[in-house]
Amino acid sequence: MQRRGLLLILSSPSGAGKSTLARRLMDWDPTIRFSVSATTRPPRPGEVDGQHYYFRDRAAFETMIDEGEMLEHAEVFGNFYGSPRAPVEAAMREGRDTLFDIDWQGGQQIRNSALGRDVVSVFVLPPSIAELDRRLRGRAQDSDEVIAGRMAKSRDEISHWAEYDYVLVNDDLDISFNSLLTILEAERMRRDRQPALSDFVRGLNREFEQR
Amino acid sequence: MQRRGLLLILSSPSGAGKSTLARRLMDWDPTIRFSVSATTRPPRPGEVDGQHYYFRDRAAFETMIDEGEMLEHAEVFGNFYGSPRAPVEAAMREGRDTLFDIDWQGGQQIRNSALGRDVVSVFVLPPSIAELDRRLRGRAQDSDEVIAGRMAKSRDEISHWAEYDYVLVNDDLDISFNSLLTILEAERMRRDRQPALSDFVRGLNREFEQR
Repeated sequence: MQRRGLLLILSSPSGAGKSTLARRLMDWDPTIRFSVSATTRPPRPGEVDGQHYYFRDRAAFETMIDEGEMLEHAEVFGNFYGSPRAPVEAAMREGRDTLFDIDWQGGQQIRNSALGRDVVSVFVLPPSIAELDRRLRGRAQDSDEVIAGRMAKSRDEISHWAEYDYVLVNDDLDISFNSLLTILEAERMRRDRQPALSDFVRGLNREFEQR
Repeated sequence: MQRRGLLLILSSPSGAGKSTLARRLMDWDPTIRFSVSATTRPPRPGEVDGQHYYFRDRAAFETMIDEGEMLEHAEVFGNFYGSPRAPVEAAMREGRDTLFDIDWQGGQQIRNSALGRDVVSVFVLPPSIAELDRRLRGRAQDSDEVIAGRMAKSRDEISHWAEYDYVLVNDDLDISFNSLLTILEAERMRRDRQPALSDFVRGLNREFEQR
């Protein structure tokens, strides 16, 4: 049966495993569309425009905001980040789910938008702050200052955990991934995501009438 | 982590497979408590008081209603049916889920009660009315009149499918059972069913403060 596509929002502090979970989910189900964010921050080495981000200058980003082309947007560390609206609406029309790897500000805006009823939101917590710190330091390319900034942002991010539908404590990546799959599979079965059920029940009623 | 027990309501027309699914779910997870209904209808051969139903006379049943001991109740074919409240509240306190095999009237009453936010409701549809009819006729003990009455009740029951959180079309019992498990496992992971998460996040915040 054709489903109504849902918007799966994954948020977490940096280093809690959100991006790994997102990548595994995309590998598991290639019909899921990943929402590529737009940003005004400069590309890091290896980042590809249109794949990791849509890299835009400030003027172009502000025009997108003004013309209602952003589903959500926020300024973080002096750079804009946002989710373009058109690809999400296109995916929904095709009955495909969209995966968002965004922070609490983006999550809050989408939840409060007209698409709020289509949102399934999952917050990923680290098992401990010591472990979060260890994972962040594992990324060789970041300086101590960057890590300190991320830890402050992590605390801010974690303070919004209770706004999410589901919360996973990512102690073991395989367990967390299975939990995420279970959530997605269950949410896809919700009655209001299966518009074809109405036709199916009309068919049952015709059968009753023809008896 | 200690969970808040949920109320899993399974409804379907007679013969759609609801009771088989309920039995398999109880076998799969013995911590689930089955809500044994009370009824004023006489026991059928083999039915045991306190196991299949609590068999009560009309006066006793009405006293239970008057004293607020029923979570829900309804009159069907001249007999009262209802779900005693105390065992459900006891299970919730222990963090155990309760499974209800009840009709739309009971489902509606529990959903609209103070426990409504703890409800997960699943409606099981037959793949066709021809198949429903076949399954009902397979029960040798029922007369044609009983079956005709059940088919009329089935149509009434099916008319309430859209009041449920999830809808399963029970074409294949194994697939339907897996779907039911997925729903239960996901619903158990909802943030508002995991009160221990608050303590966990308080622990993370203490870690931030001690850095």
